[in-house]
Amino acid sequence: MSNTSALKQANGQHQFGWAISDKIVSETTPGKIDVWSAFSPLAGHVPKDALNLGQGFMSFGPEPWVLEAHNAALQDVMANHYSLPRGRANLRQAVSKYLSESFKLPNGRQLDANTEVQITAGANEGMFAFATAFLQPGDEVILFEPFFDQYIAQVTFNGGTPVFVPIRPPANASTSNVSAKEWKVDLDELRKAITPKTKMIWINTPHNPIGKVFDEEELRGIGKVAEENDLLILSDEVYDCLTFGEEHVRIAALDDFWKRTVTVGSAGKSFAATGWRVGWAVGPPNLLTPLMAAHTRIVFCVNSPAQEAVASGITQALENGFFDRQREEYESRLKVMREGLDQLGLPYTIPDGAYFILINTERLEIPEDFEVPDMIAQRAADWKAAWFVAQTAKVVLIPVTDFYNKAHWSLGEKYIRIAFCKDEDTLRAASERLLALKPYIRAQ
Amino acid sequence: MSNTSALKQANGQHQFGWAISDKIVSETTPGKIDVWSAFSPLAGHVPKDALNLGQGFMSFGPEPWVLEAHNAALQDVMANHYSLPRGRANLRQAVSKYLSESFKLPNGRQLDANTEVQITAGANEGMFAFATAFLQPGDEVILFEPFFDQYIAQVTFNGGTPVFVPIRPPANASTSNVSAKEWKVDLDELRKAITPKTKMIWINTPHNPIGKVFDEEELRGIGKVAEENDLLILSDEVYDCLTFGEEHVRIAALDDFWKRTVTVGSAGKSFAATGWRVGWAVGPPNLLTPLMAAHTRIVFCVNSPAQEAVASGITQALENGFFDRQREEYESRLKVMREGLDQLGLPYTIPDGAYFILINTERLEIPEDFEVPDMIAQRAADWKAAWFVAQTAKVVLIPVTDFYNKAHWSLGEKYIRIAFCKDEDTLRAASERLLALKPYIRAQ
Repeated sequence: MSNTSALKQANGQHQFGWAISDKIVSETTPGKIDVWSAFSPLAGHVPKDALNLGQGFMSFGPEPWVLEAHNAALQDVMANHYSLPRGRANLRQAVSKYLSESFKLPNGRQLDANTEVQITAGANEGMFAFATAFLQPGDEVILFEPFFDQYIAQVTFNGGTPVFVPIRPPANASTSNVSAKEWKVDLDELRKAITPKTKMIWINTPHNPIGKVFDEEELRGIGKVAEENDLLILSDEVYDCLTFGEEHVRIAALDDFWKRTVTVGSAGKSFAATGWRVGWAVGPPNLLTPLMAAHTRIVFCVNSPAQEAVASGITQALENGFFDRQREEYESRLKVMREGLDQLGLPYTIPDGAYFILINTERLEIPEDFEVPDMIAQRAADWKAAWFVAQTAKVVLIPVTDFYNKAHWSLGEKYIRIAFCKDEDTLRAASERLLALKPYIRAQ
Repeated sequence: MSNTSALKQANGQHQFGWAISDKIVSETTPGKIDVWSAFSPLAGHVPKDALNLGQGFMSFGPEPWVLEAHNAALQDVMANHYSLPRGRANLRQAVSKYLSESFKLPNGRQLDANTEVQITAGANEGMFAFATAFLQPGDEVILFEPFFDQYIAQVTFNGGTPVFVPIRPPANASTSNVSAKEWKVDLDELRKAITPKTKMIWINTPHNPIGKVFDEEELRGIGKVAEENDLLILSDEVYDCLTFGEEHVRIAALDDFWKRTVTVGSAGKSFAATGWRVGWAVGPPNLLTPLMAAHTRIVFCVNSPAQEAVASGITQALENGFFDRQREEYESRLKVMREGLDQLGLPYTIPDGAYFILINTERLEIPEDFEVPDMIAQRAADWKAAWFVAQTAKVVLIPVTDFYNKAHWSLGEKYIRIAFCKDEDTLRAASERLLALKPYIRAQ
């Protein structure tokens, strides 16, 4: 144990009575509140009557026909009991049917539901299990900034070391609306981040929070770097069915990248059921076998009736056109939200997928006498901006520096994230409220 | 990395194309099948028409009023979305109401639903998160043998080293029925297993597979050893509501052990819903805070509608007497199963809790020309016995050496486990089939 970690342990000892593990130390820093708790009306820090466009859950639930399938599963005794750790056959087969085409396997073959599809407790646990399966202490993992904040612990809890490569916005992002396409990975910067210890690259497309849908060329560039260095790829594609205009491309479907890639997906995002905790991992058997071995010991299996509900949901959706309809609904929500932001006048990034918009707050001038609590004052400027928005406009948004390594906070602190996975009335009401910020926006 | 693990890695490299993590190596040994897959009619090794009294899931499902509550939760939009990582308020409050009395807190106070109850993805993930929260590499964890097989990976995946202390059967266990009470932990043997590296003791009561309900004196003895060495205690009490005659005692309720103990429980076992993956951890805030920090990153939260269903289930059960009724039903099942085993004539351990019976197979004489596949031949004698039973009587039982450290296989290989969490017709049919073994039982 290094001196630093001995010191941390001593702190842990003092705080908890028993020494906690090193990996938990940074998760339990006294006074450090996580972004989701700080910016949740339920948690009581921001106004209880604020409209919550922070955390990315929907203001609507799963379709009635999916709920009916769920209830039907509850009536089946065996669907209330343990599933195979791999996942229920119905769901693995449904995922194969749903996704095979997009993986462009040789000769148009289907994903093998027994060896190339693993059901996980949300995509989250799938990524955790992947890290458990393949990371050795000291292995380095390339994460692109901004990253989904769970990635850090998924890597570090499993002994890995995150190495950060920023996705850089265009120069004019503080003065005008930009396209998510203009946020770019610099492949030279990526190559420079690779060391002999690098084991894997994690990507996220469609991207939270940028809304960027990586195109074929970009994915080929990243995949090529992985290939040159014999790295694994974890591709977090939980928003794969929520793209606007752009076609979602899977890195696993390009060139020869399939053999080194595990792709994770989410029923929560696909069916407006973020609380069901059903996800999947797709990849070649030699990558999924170790992942399943880890998954089996971490959670054993995933909620069984919800698996049956999702299996039926996918099967029905493929017949009734739900995914197209849902995409249109999200496009409409995006339109409503953009109209609101255009009225407000702060520049933002126009997403091609997922359900977030990054607002650039450089022109938001917070009065000097505006007071914030310590838990906000200790953080980067975006926390103060999001706090100001919550108090002034009663709309909860999410500061994004928690999606950046601290050394790169300066890149993230100009942005706050709005989640538009809400019904249009809520989005219109939020737009109306946001106009309260107008007096504080500096003219260009 | 030691030479051994380098070698294992090299094997991993060969087998999977990419090096897997050390912790996964033993989980993916080529050809080594896990006991649950080997002895499941669904998996296709044992006869498909065998009666499955192997894995401990019920042949019946949750009560209709619990299922109704589940369906009602599905109709509530927010009950389909993320829960707080700590768990839903309704469920934490219900668990507090249900369990507070049994923890005998000072002045009759209730468990604080906000700080002393954590909802987990089954008790399994609760134990995993506890290990993540408190184990440093090299920390030793005392496990009593036989242990539930998941414990090993929960400890080793988090850097811990299991240290084994057997629960020893009485001398006459091979010749006559014995009481689960007669299986004993030798406290001197426990004390000798403690080293400066010991961090925690894991106990399981009611015990799987022995059916032993530890009494106050035994728990005080173990707790005292923990106290003398300032160890944490993890108490796996997933069968706490399934005791027969004996009162279930919580180690956390004795003396001053509360402050060093986390107790885990399971809605799956309490409501015949092993596939729902809802469990809880109860303990002091200084132990639950790190556990929650780990849990948040491993799975984020637990299936939301199932949490609401269990909350309602507990509340209703406390009013309609379900837990007493369920206990009576299990006592009746135990009686049916014992009648069957008495007819068969192999001695067994009479359980005081949980839903397993250990059958002693020393007098079962397997014909010398009985052939077994390699996956069975490579294992201890109990695998062969269970295989013989499956083929000859078409009843699937579970060999228990997977619940022992390999060095102690000789202690476990005389036993196979029968799960009687099945309807009485199934138990009677299984008893009938088991009579096919009678010609192979040596007279005493």
